[in-house]
Amino acid sequence: MNSQSPFHESVPARLARVREAMAREGVAALLVPSADPHLSEYLPGYWQGRQWLSGFEGSVGTLVVTADFAGLWADSRYWEQANKELAGSGIELMKLRPGQPGALEWLGAEVDGTVAVDGAVMAVAAARQLSERLQARGAKLRTDIDLLAEVWSDRPSLPGNPVYQHLPPHATVNRAQKLAELRGTLQEKGADWHFIATLDDIAWLFNLRGSDVSYNPVFVSFALVSQDKAYLFVGREKVDGHLRQVLAADGIEVRDYVAVGDALSAIPATASLLVDPARVTRGLLDNLHEQVRLVEGSNPTTLSKSRKGEEDLAHIRQAMEQDGAALCEFFAWLEANLGTQRITELTIDDQLSAARARRPGFVSLSFSTIAAYNANGAMPHYRATEQSHAVIEGNGLLLIDSGGQYLGGTTDITRMVPIGEPSREQKADCSRVLKGMIALSRARFPRGILSPLLDAIARAPIWADQVDYGHGTGHGVGYFMNVHEGPQVIAYQAAATPQTAMQPGMISSIEPGTYRPGQWGVRIENLVVNREAGASEFGEFLGFETLTLCPIDTRCLLVEALDGEDIAWLNSYHQTVRERLAPLLEGEALAWLERRTAPL
Amino acid sequence: MNSQSPFHESVPARLARVREAMAREGVAALLVPSADPHLSEYLPGYWQGRQWLSGFEGSVGTLVVTADFAGLWADSRYWEQANKELAGSGIELMKLRPGQPGALEWLGAEVDGTVAVDGAVMAVAAARQLSERLQARGAKLRTDIDLLAEVWSDRPSLPGNPVYQHLPPHATVNRAQKLAELRGTLQEKGADWHFIATLDDIAWLFNLRGSDVSYNPVFVSFALVSQDKAYLFVGREKVDGHLRQVLAADGIEVRDYVAVGDALSAIPATASLLVDPARVTRGLLDNLHEQVRLVEGSNPTTLSKSRKGEEDLAHIRQAMEQDGAALCEFFAWLEANLGTQRITELTIDDQLSAARARRPGFVSLSFSTIAAYNANGAMPHYRATEQSHAVIEGNGLLLIDSGGQYLGGTTDITRMVPIGEPSREQKADCSRVLKGMIALSRARFPRGILSPLLDAIARAPIWADQVDYGHGTGHGVGYFMNVHEGPQVIAYQAAATPQTAMQPGMISSIEPGTYRPGQWGVRIENLVVNREAGASEFGEFLGFETLTLCPIDTRCLLVEALDGEDIAWLNSYHQTVRERLAPLLEGEALAWLERRTAPL
Repeated sequence: MNSQSPFHESVPARLARVREAMAREGVAALLVPSADPHLSEYLPGYWQGRQWLSGFEGSVGTLVVTADFAGLWADSRYWEQANKELAGSGIELMKLRPGQPGALEWLGAEVDGTVAVDGAVMAVAAARQLSERLQARGAKLRTDIDLLAEVWSDRPSLPGNPVYQHLPPHATVNRAQKLAELRGTLQEKGADWHFIATLDDIAWLFNLRGSDVSYNPVFVSFALVSQDKAYLFVGREKVDGHLRQVLAADGIEVRDYVAVGDALSAIPATASLLVDPARVTRGLLDNLHEQVRLVEGSNPTTLSKSRKGEEDLAHIRQAMEQDGAALCEFFAWLEANLGTQRITELTIDDQLSAARARRPGFVSLSFSTIAAYNANGAMPHYRATEQSHAVIEGNGLLLIDSGGQYLGGTTDITRMVPIGEPSREQKADCSRVLKGMIALSRARFPRGILSPLLDAIARAPIWADQVDYGHGTGHGVGYFMNVHEGPQVIAYQAAATPQTAMQPGMISSIEPGTYRPGQWGVRIENLVVNREAGASEFGEFLGFETLTLCPIDTRCLLVEALDGEDIAWLNSYHQTVRERLAPLLEGEALAWLERRTAPL
Repeated sequence: MNSQSPFHESVPARLARVREAMAREGVAALLVPSADPHLSEYLPGYWQGRQWLSGFEGSVGTLVVTADFAGLWADSRYWEQANKELAGSGIELMKLRPGQPGALEWLGAEVDGTVAVDGAVMAVAAARQLSERLQARGAKLRTDIDLLAEVWSDRPSLPGNPVYQHLPPHATVNRAQKLAELRGTLQEKGADWHFIATLDDIAWLFNLRGSDVSYNPVFVSFALVSQDKAYLFVGREKVDGHLRQVLAADGIEVRDYVAVGDALSAIPATASLLVDPARVTRGLLDNLHEQVRLVEGSNPTTLSKSRKGEEDLAHIRQAMEQDGAALCEFFAWLEANLGTQRITELTIDDQLSAARARRPGFVSLSFSTIAAYNANGAMPHYRATEQSHAVIEGNGLLLIDSGGQYLGGTTDITRMVPIGEPSREQKADCSRVLKGMIALSRARFPRGILSPLLDAIARAPIWADQVDYGHGTGHGVGYFMNVHEGPQVIAYQAAATPQTAMQPGMISSIEPGTYRPGQWGVRIENLVVNREAGASEFGEFLGFETLTLCPIDTRCLLVEALDGEDIAWLNSYHQTVRERLAPLLEGEALAWLERRTAPL
């Protein structure tokens, strides 16, 4: 294959072809978000157009192309990676900072004429906002052409993996009950129909799972529900006859994925439809009769899904034990073999994935393992590749952020490993980050508090030394489901909307960090669940139960930087970890567990 | 005077007369907010119609009257007081809780037909919201009748106190500079005119002060500013000839207060006007030509006013020393005389006010002193009266929240005084509240963080014991100006809007509390100022300098409930207090200072 083939075309060549298409259609600016019709976080290759056109492989970023400019907006997690990947592309990295204008604001301020975006992948709310901005200055938004598709010659096909059931005992609420609950909410909200495009909501509602998207056990689909109908739109070949019958028995009709537009068109003009304008794309809603009344609100499934029940939690605790045991086996291997064989960031990924794969109930990783040594750790979303990865040698800090999907839960954990002798500064960073994690882990708070308001509790010990980090402190985590889910978000950068209120049963990560570009990065992460922590004359309170079970290596810490309460928390945590994991381990791994959970 | 006179008319009789007027005008519900055309916190008697009609004297509350219902919405600070004052009135206390629907939501949900409110006292934004809610259910809002005025027979007149200059050295920026800065901002925002109705913004902009409103050194007025005009609308008799000339020299024309409507009408239809829809009333804007383009945004003076300069701070530190010295004299007197003479909550107010009045630069109190013993302390806005006040005797806690207006600053401080021997529970409450105050006082945080996000730092040690309080942790404080000012607000209940961002020079209170109805209340309050706390690779950080200087009585504390850092902070604070106040004191007061600042 010669280098002129579109399969090895350079980014500048791709940009040149898209600019030709823009000129032909009279488009002043092309907007390419990282998005699909489901507004998923991880995109099937079919919708990775932004990656294809820009060469930037990070999972979140927005590309804008005009005749004489191309810019990629990415947040601080991706700056290092984007700087590398965009080099020589002619695309400028536009650093996205909390509270600062982003790509949409830039378009609204800089572009005269027509801005084009594929309406199929742009949320209703975002399209509305951009359109208003553009109209205010006489420019306009077109959502009915997909210029990228025209020039994308080697576009992957839509994923076609089979859909399967999430079954009892791991599925603890049956789909008939979930549908009944959803229909009750629709009635309360005065909506005749509800349209869902978000894949995790659909998978949760129907107790189905798939593997269309890396790491997330979901399948590409839409759902449309009324008081007496429930349609699942999914690739014809992905649901077998048996499953079709099982679903039919619960009143769910399977239709072809591409039939969703017609089904939306068929909603009567007199009906009302509940949709979340932030979670449904403009292109899809363009199918509706213009008189259909929109009831705007978040998908009721998002809140229901976030609140894990007691039976779910029992399964999750078991999954955490299996995951923790796998981690102990891996860490024991690492400690025994460092210095005796060549270990790289890639070896780590292989060994850790294999340790997890040996555990009962394991399905897949829950995201791409981040094994990042020293300077690589300063990139919060770093991924080692065959072309570029570090050897674990010398002195420093190894950051390992990893997780698994189990039939009974989803895990996500970050630990720091000392290599040789970490410096005093490195230990100070680890200690400070741990203090932040402990401060929030120990916190109690009023039930219903908006989750972004809790972030300062984790950051206060970190801010005290004029240190901060650009990502959120915590995200929601699913139950054998996406490792990132809403509605809660523990991040001072996030909008404190009523949807983000903390309720019992929600699982979140607590993962403060510190990133020193070119030097090292630190992050320590546990998953926690909101538990009722007693009611008083002042109201109901919640607190966190820590779910993650794995030693936090005290050789990375400056003990004198911890206070009495930090040490008490750490010792008590290590005792729990030892008691829960020891029965699952033997030999070197058990010895490692005992060594690394010794009290401070 | 017989009891039939309107001057002694009962609340039910007043309600009956207003219901007659409602029936005549076909009004289904009358809304009476606590508001004036300036949307001030403290209202001149002329606008205290809600108090007159309901009998509830609290400063914040909203009354709704329909044919068969009357309700008063008030937040938790006022529940105890409202329960007492509404008894027998036929008005129901509607408990307002953070995040729960209030009076406007109730009207929007319950009332069919016409809702009337005096448009002159309802913010544009609130009127807009209510009108939309009502329209959605076929009801409507009338803002062009003032039914209350019709029946309010003994309405007080408009205040007529003279306006005077805030002069150098205390006024540190002259009005020409302030006007120039404001005009620069108008230009940036593309606004030809700016209309200001908020009294503290006007007083600050023109370096003028008055005494029309209790405790706030402001005067009833409006301002209208363009690039070449500046009008001050104020009662004709309140500005003397000299001051009129001084203002004219700075290009400011004084017009009569009642001429503001005509001036707004005279703004050309082609012009644009910057107004804050939350800080200007609907009735006033109804004067505008309908084609005047509104640029909506907060008053630029609100942010400028909040950021005190270094010279301001030098004066404020002196004012804090004088205020602290007055407090020491008072506390020394209290401690010497408790048990030897009858001391009541009213005596305390008298003695403390007298101690402040002896201090140089003192102008007035900055709010009505709260001296509240035991159960009275559970009402955060309690005020002792001749009819109802407690004698200070037995055992318990005395809460004193007080403040002064000085030419060089405004103070606001709350301290707890042990009477006899406080109980262990009382001491535990004081200790926990102090831990919250110290935690936030010591905090550093990124410059520009939205102030509501900091609240959790103060509350975490309080939430830890399932305790909370219904009010905010901190409010902005003016410079010889209102004791409550924006834009920052340290309260998790408040919306974290971009305007609330923390900037250097802002003064805030830190005043966590605990209220046990029928038993006791605890609050400890210092004022702090945002200071630059160094920049790092992670950005610019701010921290607080504590401004308030007065011992925190350690006899109210359980020392074992404090940790090492709490004690270190308290000892260091007491050392500063001792060093700064000792030179201003002698005799018993000096001895008291030394006794009460002894290290723990």
